[in-house]
Order: sequence, then structure tokens, then C-alpha cells
Amino acid sequence: MLSHEKKKPVVLQLGKIMFGQQAWDDLRKIADVITLDRSTTREKFISGLKDPNNKLSQVQIIARTFHSVEQTGRFDEEIADAVPSSLIAICHTGAGYDQIDVKYFQKRHIQVSHVPNVVNNVTADTHVFLLLGALRNYSMGYRKLINNEWPVSPSGGGVPLGHDPEGKTVGVLGLGGIGRAVVHRLKPFGFKRFIYHNRHKLPGELENDCEYVSFEELLRQSDVLSINIPLGPSTRHIINDEAFEEMKTGVVIVNTARGAVIDEQALIKALKSGKVRSAGLDVFENEPEVPKELQDMPQVLGLPHMGTHCVETRKNMEDFVSANVESAITSGKVIAIVPEMKNDAWINGCKPLI
Amino acid sequence: MLSHEKKKPVVLQLGKIMFGQQAWDDLRKIADVITLDRSTTREKFISGLKDPNNKLSQVQIIARTFHSVEQTGRFDEEIADAVPSSLIAICHTGAGYDQIDVKYFQKRHIQVSHVPNVVNNVTADTHVFLLLGALRNYSMGYRKLINNEWPVSPSGGGVPLGHDPEGKTVGVLGLGGIGRAVVHRLKPFGFKRFIYHNRHKLPGELENDCEYVSFEELLRQSDVLSINIPLGPSTRHIINDEAFEEMKTGVVIVNTARGAVIDEQALIKALKSGKVRSAGLDVFENEPEVPKELQDMPQVLGLPHMGTHCVETRKNMEDFVSANVESAITSGKVIAIVPEMKNDAWINGCKPLI
Repeated sequence: MLSHEKKKPVVLQLGKIMFGQQAWDDLRKIADVITLDRSTTREKFISGLKDPNNKLSQVQIIARTFHSVEQTGRFDEEIADAVPSSLIAICHTGAGYDQIDVKYFQKRHIQVSHVPNVVNNVTADTHVFLLLGALRNYSMGYRKLINNEWPVSPSGGGVPLGHDPEGKTVGVLGLGGIGRAVVHRLKPFGFKRFIYHNRHKLPGELENDCEYVSFEELLRQSDVLSINIPLGPSTRHIINDEAFEEMKTGVVIVNTARGAVIDEQALIKALKSGKVRSAGLDVFENEPEVPKELQDMPQVLGLPHMGTHCVETRKNMEDFVSANVESAITSGKVIAIVPEMKNDAWINGCKPLI
Repeated sequence: MLSHEKKKPVVLQLGKIMFGQQAWDDLRKIADVITLDRSTTREKFISGLKDPNNKLSQVQIIARTFHSVEQTGRFDEEIADAVPSSLIAICHTGAGYDQIDVKYFQKRHIQVSHVPNVVNNVTADTHVFLLLGALRNYSMGYRKLINNEWPVSPSGGGVPLGHDPEGKTVGVLGLGGIGRAVVHRLKPFGFKRFIYHNRHKLPGELENDCEYVSFEELLRQSDVLSINIPLGPSTRHIINDEAFEEMKTGVVIVNTARGAVIDEQALIKALKSGKVRSAGLDVFENEPEVPKELQDMPQVLGLPHMGTHCVETRKNMEDFVSANVESAITSGKVIAIVPEMKNDAWINGCKPLI
């Protein structure tokens, strides 16, 4: 009878599970969960995917964390070409999935899921922290304090006076889930005006009382530029020399999206010239490399990509990835497919694995 | 006719005016504004106040900044005894006026005014910044970043994972103007519950949906303790060893009020033991001295007293002090008298100076 028993679907789990272990233990009841051992390089991973004698060649779902990229490298054309035809879904742990070149997997009718909403609140919390800090020169004050450089006078540790929300315009580049959560949090702080730019104007109920403006007007009118767009070919270096040129002198820049949406060298120039008064940055172009100049500028409040770095959210994210895996197994379809695939007809043909 | 012309009232302006110069220029039209020269010590100041040949002995109003304390020292019993009987008001630039021993001036029927509301919003902004930072371990992340210590893995610079507002109780010690502004700002962040303790339960319309609890319950139930009480004899070291004993292990402490409301040595012990997980501190017991241990603990996000350190608020504060001086001259009464004097009958007898 054993020969007739349906084999459990093979799920490859890439990267370390921190808080969602219970959900993975539950998954093991319906799936054959495999992992890579530590010594597996990208090359070995790719050859394993192609080797009929390696279990990787039978994989049906891949779940991956942001940091698993350190072992496998990006999920690019090479990996898309190498994965077996058994693979139906890649479930990514994070809102941004720029580590995956979606189009190559799309061609092969492999679903890609992400974690679109769970991270909104905590990323927005980080954004507000950086925004207030940059507006008020708190990174300068903190440096004085920890370096034992607080003078008797003048006040505020001798740091240049910061600014109030009073009278300021916040320009949101990318009014999506995170952008809206940022605006929601900033409402009580007394800013004068909220404007936003997306590729398309949103329906009124999603605008959160923000006024739609063109990209150029957003750059020209913002006292604080709040960046919340995903990284992709059309947004890479969208904030570049020309964009800085358009901005108000003394603008405050806040980025919790992805480093590469800003041309980092252009930002450094703009900070040096005073065009940009201060910046709050959770993300950098070549993480974990941060240009020495950005490390050393006291007007830069930087964090080592901590936007979702908290217990409760990590657990919620990991649990949501498990739920996507389970959904792909039992229904054939992930829960949160990436927008690029949303209208693809082939999705309708995806069948349960058990 | 000159002998009949009424002399302009003498106003002593102590400390540096940064943004409110226009208002002081206007005041000069109705007042004889004098200042201390730089070399004047506290001793010289006091002897000048008592010397009939010194113009200080004719002073009718004193306007003072927070930092003028460096020249004159605290406005204590000694100064209260020295000021001439011509003095009717002391106008302080700040919400907190612990640099002035009100009771000695009260005895002599000298009004003391402060700046109670202008600072609420910006102090609350600072408070929210410190609260988010302490909850999320951002001071640890910032240190990693500026020290070029961002490892390839694990995530978040290798900093311990922080916490979400999700499920947390914020306990507000001192739900006054600043406390209410803090709660107003924190509402959209998704905390579970807000509780507060004041000496007396507030009328419902001032409670901002916070639940009144005893001091002990506040300590026992808070995940985040938000301190917004003025410093006075009854609040000095109100957060001491015994208070820390009552708190949850892992509590987050935020103080933008005055350093001495916390016993700093008790706080250091509680941080070392892990009873307090992290702290956001804008104020310290012996500013600008900060214990080396607090400087060095990465879980302390500290600022050199920057709560109101911004252009717009400084101007608003300075203008409000000028308005109090003008009001004292033209009506005999300051605008914002300190609470201790509010019900004093002698205030009714105060007469205009012109």
C-alpha cells in the first residue's frame, strides 16, 4: 500500500527561523521540509537543483528569508533557469522582494509571494523615529552625549537648533501601505500639509487626506521627503543629482524603503552642500557597507536596516510565510502573490500539492 | 515738564535672546531694558540688587532664560531676600521653573510666570522619538552604524530585536499639557492601553482616554513608563530603588521632564540588572554631567536636553516671555502665573507699572 501513499510535497526552507518555529513544526505534518546545510554555496545550491539524485531537484515550494541571500545569492535568471519544473512557489519573508527577479520566475509560471502588510506598522514606526530625529538634529545630540561633549552652554549640547513640524510640508514618495501608515502616525504632530506622488493618483479613500502632485512638484514643495517606494528598475536612483537639484534647500530626507532608490553618492554631495539639511536612513545602497562619509556626518541618523527588527513583527512575518506555504500546498495558490503576477492567467491553473 | 514725565519701568533681561529680538525691541518703547554684563558674578548680581546706587536696585521685572542660571545661579532664598521691593514679577523662559524657589518670592508677593503650553508639542515630539528609539533598540543600531560595526549577519546590525507597540501598556506619570500631547501623538501607533497617574484624577475631558491608576499600579502595569511631571520637593527621586522594584522586568523608561525626578544611580542599577530594558532620556540629574555609565550603555538613548531645542519654539517661547513682561507692565499681572500662585489673593492688588 505504501507505493500508493502520496508523498508529502518537498518544501525548501532557506534562512534562519527565529520565532515562527511552531508554524514550521505544524507544516512538517503535511510537508517534507528540507534545508541547506551551512557549507552549501550558491554553486552547490544551483547544481543540486539540477541534479536528479539531489532532493533539491524535487523541490515544490521554496520559503526564504531576507538574509538567506548571503548563502544563495539573489534569485536571478540563473536560479530561475536552474529550479526544477516541480517548483510552484517561492515564499519570501519581507515586503520588498528586490532580491528576486520576478520576471524570470513568471516566465516559468512560478508564483512569488511576499509579506505586504505585516511590516507596515513597524516600518512606519521606524520612519517616524528617523523623521523626527532628522528634523530635530537628534543624531548630533546623541553623539555629543555619548562622546562626553555636552558643553555647559549653549543649550542643547551646542547642536544647531532643529525644526518643528509647524508649517512644514511632508512629501510622501510612494503612498502605499507603509506610506499610509507613516502619514497616519504623523497626523497628530502638527505638520501643515501632506502631499504624495505615486505613478497614478489613488482613489480618494486611500489618499489619507494627502494631496496628489507630480514627481517634480513633490521634490519642489517638500520640507521633509518621506520615501516609501519599492526598489525596481524604474525606481533605482529615482532620487539622483537632478532630483536633488529640484528640492528646497534644507530639505530633510527619510528613507526606510531600499537604499538604492537614492543615488548614495548624490546624497552625500547634497548633504555636504547643505541642500539636504539632514537625513534619516534605515537602508543603504550596498548593505552592510555604508560609505564612511555617511557614517561620519552627524546630520545623518542611520540605522542598520532595523525597519522590521522586532520580536512581534518577526514572528508575524514568519507565520505569514508559513501560511503562504500551507496555502500553496493545500490550494495550489499562495496568499499574497506579488503585484506583477496578480493578473496572470496561468495562476488559475495552479493545483493543490496534496 | 520732564520732572513730571513718568519714568519707564526697569526690566532686567537675563540670558541670551536668540529669535525674539523684535519683541524686545518693541518692549524698549515702554520699558527701560537693562542687562548684566558678562563679568557679573552671582555675588556682584546680589550686591547690585541691594545697592541704591546700582540700577539693579530699581528693577521692577526680571525676564530670565534657562541658561541664565549659569551666571546668576538659582533664584533661591538668597536672591529672593536681595531683590528690591520694586520687583513685581519674574518671567521665566520655559515650562519647568525648578530653578526658582517660588515660595520665597511668593512671600514677597512677586509674581513668577513660566511658559506652560508653547513647549508642549515639541517636548512631546522629543518624547515620542525617545520612546520609539528605546522600544526598538535604535541607539544600539546607530552606534553600530557610526562605528562601522554592521555585520553581514545577523539582521539589524546584530542588535537584539526590539519590540512593537502591539500589546503594550503605556503608563504616563504626569498627564498634564506635555503628557496629553505625548498620548495624542502615540494614539495611532497601536499601543494596547494608556494609563496615567496624577496626584488627582482628572476630569474626563482632560484624560484623553487614559485610565487613572494609583502610582503603584502605574509602576506595576506599564511596559513603557512615560515621565512628564515637573520637578519639585514631592517629585524629586520619585522614581527610586523602591519604584524600580515595583516595575515589570524589561520596562522601557522615557524621561523628558527633569533628570532629578529619577534617582540616577538607581536607574543605572536597574539598567544593569535588566529590570529596565532601555531608556530614552533627554534630561539628567546633574546636567551637563552625565554619568559615564549612562553614556556608555548602548541601551540608553540620551540627548543633551533638546526637548525644546528648535527654532520655531524658541521664538515662540521668547515672544511669550516678552508678552508676559508687557502684560505685567501694562496690567500689573503676568499672563501665565505659576500654579502655586494662582489662587493667591495678593495678585489682585498688583497694579500697572505705567
